Parts: sequence; C-alpha cells; structure tokens
Amino acid sequence: MIRLYVEAALVGGRQVDATPQQAHYLKNVMRRASGDEVALFNGRDGEWRARIAAAGRGRCAVALLERARAQRPEPDLWLLFAPLKKARTDYLAEKATEIGASLLWPVFTRRTQAERVNLERLRANAIEAAEQSERLTVPELREPAKLNEALARWPADRRLLLCDESGAGRPIADALAPCGAADAAPAKWAVLIGPEGGFARDELDALHKLPFVTAAGLGPRILRADTAALAALVAVQALVGDWKTAPRA
Amino acid sequence: MIRLYVEAALVGGRQVDATPQQAHYLKNVMRRASGDEVALFNGRDGEWRARIAAAGRGRCAVALLERARAQRPEPDLWLLFAPLKKARTDYLAEKATEIGASLLWPVFTRRTQAERVNLERLRANAIEAAEQSERLTVPELREPAKLNEALARWPADRRLLLCDESGAGRPIADALAPCGAADAAPAKWAVLIGPEGGFARDELDALHKLPFVTAAGLGPRILRADTAALAALVAVQALVGDWKTAPRA
Repeated sequence: MIRLYVEAALVGGRQVDATPQQAHYLKNVMRRASGDEVALFNGRDGEWRARIAAAGRGRCAVALLERARAQRPEPDLWLLFAPLKKARTDYLAEKATEIGASLLWPVFTRRTQAERVNLERLRANAIEAAEQSERLTVPELREPAKLNEALARWPADRRLLLCDESGAGRPIADALAPCGAADAAPAKWAVLIGPEGGFARDELDALHKLPFVTAAGLGPRILRADTAALAALVAVQALVGDWKTAPRA
Repeated sequence: MIRLYVEAALVGGRQVDATPQQAHYLKNVMRRASGDEVALFNGRDGEWRARIAAAGRGRCAVALLERARAQRPEPDLWLLFAPLKKARTDYLAEKATEIGASLLWPVFTRRTQAERVNLERLRANAIEAAEQSERLTVPELREPAKLNEALARWPADRRLLLCDESGAGRPIADALAPCGAADAAPAKWAVLIGPEGGFARDELDALHKLPFVTAAGLGPRILRADTAALAALVAVQALVGDWKTAPRA
C-alpha cells in the first residue's frame, strides 16, 4: 500500500489534492489510476484509507474513505547534528526518521565543514522515510543554529546525550539505563553528534560542564559522524524509547 | 595519520610494498612523499608506525618503524544479510565494519532481489572502513550461501539474533540482556537480516523453531533492511559487546 504524507486535514468524505510531485509518482512511477487505493497521513489525524478519484495532467485528487489507524503518541527524541556531505546527510535523515527521531536540528560547530544545509532536501528525505516506515508523523525540522545558540536556549526538561569520542563518556548502555537504577529513564532525550572532525577541545569542555549533558561512549573504534548518530538513536530507542515497550502496530 | 591495511607480515626493520591502488592514494590523492609517516595493520601483528621509503610510478615501499598498538581481541559478531542494491550494500559494509562486525556473510532468502553480490566491492568497503575506524582487523567475508544452507551448518556455540518484522519477537534490549538475568550474555552472537521484502512466512516459521535463534523486535516502525542490520549490531555491541566494556583506545 502506497502511503503519502499530506498537509491537509483528513476528514471522512473529503477530497484531498496530491501535490504535483505526488501525482507524478502515483501515475507515472507507480502506475496507479482512478479507483486505486492509497493511504494518507498528516501527522495529526491518523492514517486514512483513500481512493484516487481523479488523475489528470499534473494533478490527482484522492477521496478519503475511513480512518485505518488513530493518531497516537510517537517518540519525543531530538537529533542535533553537524551537517555532513550531501549523500551522508540524506542517509542520516532517512535513518533517523525510521529509528524514530521527532526533530532534526542542524547545528554548526567549530569544525563543521558544510557551510549550509538544504532544509528542503532534508525534509523530502524525512517525508519519504516517514511514508515508508509507517510513521504517523514527519520529524520536525528546526532552522540551523550555531551550537552555542542551541545550548543557550536549552529546555529544562530534556537531557542531551553527548556522543563523546574522547573516551571520557560512560558506555552508552550504562549512561542511558543502568540496571536497577530507579531514575534511569528521564522522559525526554536529545542526541548531539559532532562533525567529521569531531568537537573542538573547548567545545567538549564546555559541553561537559552543562547540567543537562550526559556524555556517553560508543565503543573502542572511531565511528563516522553519521554512524555515531544512528547508533546513539538506536541505543536510546532500544533502552529507554519505544522499542522497549511498543509492539509492532 | 593515514592507516593502511596490508597482507604482509609486520616485523621491525622490514619494508612492505603498498598495492598500486594504495600507492596512487598516498601519492596522488593524499600528496604523501618519501619520509612521510603512515600506519599499517594486517589483522595479526598490531598497528605499526611506518615511513614511506620510496615512491615511484605505481609503487610505494613503506619501511616499518615500531609497533604502536599490540594486536588484541576484537568482537566476535557475525552479520548475515540478504544482499541489497549496490549503494545500500556499500553502506552496510561500511557501517557494520565500524560498529564491529567480525564476519559479513551474504545469504540468499526466498525474496532476495539481488541475484549476486560483488565480494570484491564488499571487501574494498570493509577495508576502507577498517582503516578509518582504527580497527586492527578487517571483517572476514564468507562466500554467499542460501539461507537454509547457512543454517544447516550452524555452529553450536553461537546464537542467531533474528530481526523479526512480524512483531513476534521480544524488544531487542530484553532479548539480549534482561536486567538481572545471569545467563544474559552468551559469548557469541550473529545477526540475521532479511531482504527488503522481508522473510517469507515459512522461512520465519522455520527460523523460530531453531534452537539457536533468538527473535527480537526493533520497535513499532518498519525499518529498511540496512537500518535493521545496523540497529541490531548496535544493540548487541551496546548491551553485550565491546561498547559495554572497552574504553576508547
């Protein structure tokens, strides 16, 4: 079943217009025609069965049939990452979305090579991954910021998991969920990954001093930045996130 | 410091010839010349400081100086995976090597789309990732096999972690390391990942009946095969592997 993310409200009996790109995808790539079923979600109204009502040149109207899945809470897990090269940023957006990140936030550190980040491209990759992974939401994208600006307005109720390549962090499983510790699972986490060149020494020192930072190590090898990001997200999800509790829908 | 994997024995005072590809990389890509230092490893003799002794057309001789790191045990963690499209297989080989897989074994399942796998390409990606991640070994590559053939000669002392998209598995953190369970950490694990289309129903049924199989779930979303592979390897390493115990070297 093809799943499409749309912006419109999903209400029984309504029709929704697919975007021109979605219309092209349905008609020309997937060879769908009037009468074929698709699924729609918008991040608010659950997932809906729908039927292609009319498919013309560059447009496609989809009629909503019935709600197949109710909207439900999804993980609240942020990823702050220094932008990487294009292909690796694409991949990171895809994987972070599948694993369950709720927010993708590009941050610029001292040694970040990339000078800008293509938010539209990031969003397109996140949407495609949300469609394919059966998520009911698309991760929020936050405007790129300098690392120190992001930290200066840090919310009080969220811990920041610093993937610390210096070796100073505790093993990530211990940092997240020590066996038997009653306070092992705070409600909200964020993962912070540095650029390919790592954090600068004074950036690391400053991060270690922040009261909301937990430093964690990811084993004895050097991981690429994108690998470290995925590994940290997986560890959070497996140990204190919705991989721990939620069965497959 | 550039690290290169070589086949030759590493012994003080010897010279080692780089391959033509390595010679090209050193001279033309990285602009290294006679007298510059590199590091060498071969999976057996630790890591050695070495110096470029002579760099001519298509060749480069490297003189061994001293051993910088002793060889030491690395994780014993297999990855059995159904081959994916080329770019995703490249990426999987890179990430699995960084995370610490000791063996990469392509297996063909009922729904595997790829009909062959380029072992030379897999090996090149694994070597490059080993060089960059400061591993002292390169993962072993096993000749592709049909899944049932791989299972028919399964070693008695290794558990197979089946990433089960049907929802029948326990959460992966519980499957690997239930809090307080004394027998939670067998010595050796393997991870098995199906193709993009998933396992066939009868393949899954047969897998569940095998005494060495542990079925685990990776949360409520649908993960791509390559994401599932990386996630399972990360979970093993974080919970019962060398991310749990070993500090950064």
